Amino acid sequence: MEQHNEEEHNYISERTKWKRQLYRIIFKSDTKLGKLFDIILLVLILLSTFIVMMESVKVIDAKLHILFIVLEVIITMFFTIEYILRILVIRNKRNYIFSFFGIIDFLAILPFYLSLFFPITKYFLIIRMLRMLRIFRILNLMDFMNDGYLIVRALKNSSRKIYIFLLFLIIFSVIVGSMMLMVEGHREGFESIPQSIYWAVVTVTTVGYGDVSPGTPLGKFLSVLLMLAGYSIIAVPTGIVTAEMRNKRQNFELVCPRCGNDDVDDDARYCKKCGEKIL
Amino acid sequence: MEQHNEEEHNYISERTKWKRQLYRIIFKSDTKLGKLFDIILLVLILLSTFIVMMESVKVIDAKLHILFIVLEVIITMFFTIEYILRILVIRNKRNYIFSFFGIIDFLAILPFYLSLFFPITKYFLIIRMLRMLRIFRILNLMDFMNDGYLIVRALKNSSRKIYIFLLFLIIFSVIVGSMMLMVEGHREGFESIPQSIYWAVVTVTTVGYGDVSPGTPLGKFLSVLLMLAGYSIIAVPTGIVTAEMRNKRQNFELVCPRCGNDDVDDDARYCKKCGEKIL
Amino acid sequence: MEQHNEEEHNYISERTKWKRQLYRIIFKSDTKLGKLFDIILLVLILLSTFIVMMESVKVIDAKLHILFIVLEVIITMFFTIEYILRILVIRNKRNYIFSFFGIIDFLAILPFYLSLFFPITKYFLIIRMLRMLRIFRILNLMDFMNDGYLIVRALKNSSRKIYIFLLFLIIFSVIVGSMMLMVEGHREGFESIPQSIYWAVVTVTTVGYGDVSPGTPLGKFLSVLLMLAGYSIIAVPTGIVTAEMRNKRQNFELVCPRCGNDDVDDDARYCKKCGEKIL
Amino acid sequence: MEQHNEEEHNYISERTKWKRQLYRIIFKSDTKLGKLFDIILLVLILLSTFIVMMESVKVIDAKLHILFIVLEVIITMFFTIEYILRILVIRNKRNYIFSFFGIIDFLAILPFYLSLFFPITKYFLIIRMLRMLRIFRILNLMDFMNDGYLIVRALKNSSRKIYIFLLFLIIFSVIVGSMMLMVEGHREGFESIPQSIYWAVVTVTTVGYGDVSPGTPLGKFLSVLLMLAGYSIIAVPTGIVTAEMRNKRQNFELVCPRCGNDDVDDDARYCKKCGEKIL
Repeated sequence: MEQHNEEEHNYISERTKWKRQLYRIIFKSDTKLGKLFDIILLVLILLSTFIVMMESVKVIDAKLHILFIVLEVIITMFFTIEYILRILVIRNKRNYIFSFFGIIDFLAILPFYLSLFFPITKYFLIIRMLRMLRIFRILNLMDFMNDGYLIVRALKNSSRKIYIFLLFLIIFSVIVGSMMLMVEGHREGFESIPQSIYWAVVTVTTVGYGDVSPGTPLGKFLSVLLMLAGYSIIAVPTGIVTAEMRNKRQNFELVCPRCGNDDVDDDARYCKKCGEKIL
Repeated sequence: MEQHNEEEHNYISERTKWKRQLYRIIFKSDTKLGKLFDIILLVLILLSTFIVMMESVKVIDAKLHILFIVLEVIITMFFTIEYILRILVIRNKRNYIFSFFGIIDFLAILPFYLSLFFPITKYFLIIRMLRMLRIFRILNLMDFMNDGYLIVRALKNSSRKIYIFLLFLIIFSVIVGSMMLMVEGHREGFESIPQSIYWAVVTVTTVGYGDVSPGTPLGKFLSVLLMLAGYSIIAVPTGIVTAEMRNKRQNFELVCPRCGNDDVDDDARYCKKCGEKIL
Repeated sequence: MEQHNEEEHNYISERTKWKRQLYRIIFKSDTKLGKLFDIILLVLILLSTFIVMMESVKVIDAKLHILFIVLEVIITMFFTIEYILRILVIRNKRNYIFSFFGIIDFLAILPFYLSLFFPITKYFLIIRMLRMLRIFRILNLMDFMNDGYLIVRALKNSSRKIYIFLLFLIIFSVIVGSMMLMVEGHREGFESIPQSIYWAVVTVTTVGYGDVSPGTPLGKFLSVLLMLAGYSIIAVPTGIVTAEMRNKRQNFELVCPRCGNDDVDDDARYCKKCGEKIL
Repeated sequence: MEQHNEEEHNYISERTKWKRQLYRIIFKSDTKLGKLFDIILLVLILLSTFIVMMESVKVIDAKLHILFIVLEVIITMFFTIEYILRILVIRNKRNYIFSFFGIIDFLAILPFYLSLFFPITKYFLIIRMLRMLRIFRILNLMDFMNDGYLIVRALKNSSRKIYIFLLFLIIFSVIVGSMMLMVEGHREGFESIPQSIYWAVVTVTTVGYGDVSPGTPLGKFLSVLLMLAGYSIIAVPTGIVTAEMRNKRQNFELVCPRCGNDDVDDDARYCKKCGEKIL
């Protein structure tokens, strides 16, 4: 860490030209080759995800098992080379390796090498599927993620409220679930509190599988109340996020020229932070 | 194309009177005959769609097969004549033929003529149902579609955000689906990743068919989390579209020429900030 | 009608005192007796609705049939007397009789008298249930309906947009339904276009009974797309109504003192209709 | 009550030091010990709730019955001591005992002592689950509930509108349910009006268990209408709460003393209309 500045200093002399060029191709998307690389990567990620999916379907796997393994080897080779190159060309190697995408890149090739030494288990599957998250890296480069960040930010800003709401909802479901246990008298699907809570959440979120449904008149009456509650209070998270999003839209528009306050409403004539005239 | 202006120029002299009149009746809705034509067309479209539907019900088709065929022939004749007339009376024939509605008009009569030469297959059905889209042409003429355009525009403007949201949702469903495959241990409905993803989408969108539902306690616990997530994040597309709609109401329109206030409503005659006359 | 003004004129002299008092008790809610009358009426309506419901449950009806009939006779007597009194004490009898509540009041007693001459059929049931609508009359008097009118107005103002949206949704469901017919190949629940449309609406509205669900992989894939569509576009009616409600809130606040314009925003400093300074 | 002021007066001298200290630990969260106490309490509440849940699962209870009883006794002892201490250290004892949390605290220990004298019935279960509500007390202390209050207040302020909406919805469901009884002709699940209403609510709230679903074509058609209605009018509670939340953000707060502008954000230090200093 302490030699970071020094590194910075000798940047141009130290780094060979091909490293700089490779860096631009692999990490950036502002050259023709860089874009081509991104598209190849995107195709390989999608293909690789698709293969993992198809492998899990027994009928298809029986027919195409060899093809899947060959493709998996080729793609893993590509990902491995890519991973090594990424480490080679980046300056701050440790930062990359332990970054979110660094770990995802590593996890994308790990299962293959593990499977050489250990028997393949079903737990490999989920790790292999995590490759899919690499899509976000490319979308990021392709300038597709601004809107994504907006959504994430709106969710993050309202997350506290949504957690509280979910807590209310869960406690409500737990209590209604417990009541149903008494009402339905340990009928099928209402044998224990956890099962009744499962039913209550299925109902209040309006999912309604129907694998568990009330049998007694009183149980049906309680269900009806629960459904109406679920149907009404879905307004709460919606209201929270909508209010947050509306807020976000505005922040974008204006910035106070004096104090840099970026929370200036459309219709403000003075900065609300420093009193500077804006319009 | 280059002779377009010339055509424009000689408009009145070149075109015979009946062509102009027919054009007004068929393509416009500002004369009595034009309105009558629209209403007849609307009735025929609805009738024809209804016939295709009823034909697909075996019990009904068995009884009324002859009637359906006769009506189909009559309506197709009308649509054919209408299609020929449309081409005849319009000046820019190529534009019409390859326009959205031109293709729909053609597809409305195509299945009948194809069925004279080829055996009828189930693929004809869907093409015949596309006739229904012709309803929009008439609604358009009848000034009914302004609100429709507003909705379409709000959806289009927020489509980028909604696509990103759907991408998040799909990737989320894929990962949760893969996890359920491990958790539920290849039970019925969780045999492969695609099937688990199907379950995950059924759950997160709160559809909840119930044809696949978790059987193990851990699976039920994961389902509950997925349901709560689906119940909460429905707020996101709602928030996006609501913010967009509110925006549409405002920004669409006018800016005050004096003070630059862009929050001027449709029906405002004076700027609400500086009192400037706008209309 | 032509003697209406005259009637108005001689109002006090013509009308006997008891008619005026009864009118106030029955039609208004600003006296002690009037409030008592409303509460008795409310209880009787609820009781009567409850009886109709319970009568339809065979097990309960078997036990309490006599009680239900006695109560029904008593309540109908009360409603009949009330109906006659209403006609007696109101000045504009025709207006009342053919008003919405006048018809509801009449339908509340009709089934009983019809049942004296005709055998009781199941169609009587729904007419008897319409009594329930009389609740709104009392809520109206009790000043409970202001918020109701707000909701109704917001729905009415956005109804055009919602109809267009529903039209889009229905046409979309019809086309997807037709496609599923081809894809699922006349499997159970997808035998005809109407049945496929039923499935499509069940899916797109996220109801998801599960009585019909796709069986083929391609069918499941299409279903997933339909669910995601349904989950996203629920944002549209929500956005429409929310925008409308927000609008409504504002209209209430301020009124321009010069031109009476009631569409004045919170932050307006000039009336947008006539340019009058407001604050 | 009348000696309240006097009590207040002699506050410092009368109350022993340990009472004041204990009060701060138990009722406040601004000391290290106070925070520790809260965390221990939170853990015990969660543990205790978890035990009640697990006890209801027969398979688990069979194995761990003794452990559960021992833990229950220990936790109840702790809660009892806590309850007694709370009464001891608080000045206004009656207020506490009959407050919401006072009753919840009492109900948390009641079932255990009752079970010493009476046989345990299933009704004990629900009372024991009510302990969970004690979580809110701790969240409250931990400053987590500000957002919760916002949600509750938004719901409370819009509750009148939501009740009216629910009334509409219920009456609508009752009438549609009654119609379905006639249409479906007493088929399974539509035997009586209450059962039909159950189906109607299941459908209109988009829960869609599928335990009852229409069998006749006309019934399916009516269901489709009901689903589309339910899918559209969910916009109403959402619109109500969203409008309320947006309002809360604004009106709650401040009014500019100079220009009377009431659209002043939480974090504003100057009025955005006239530039007046606010804070």
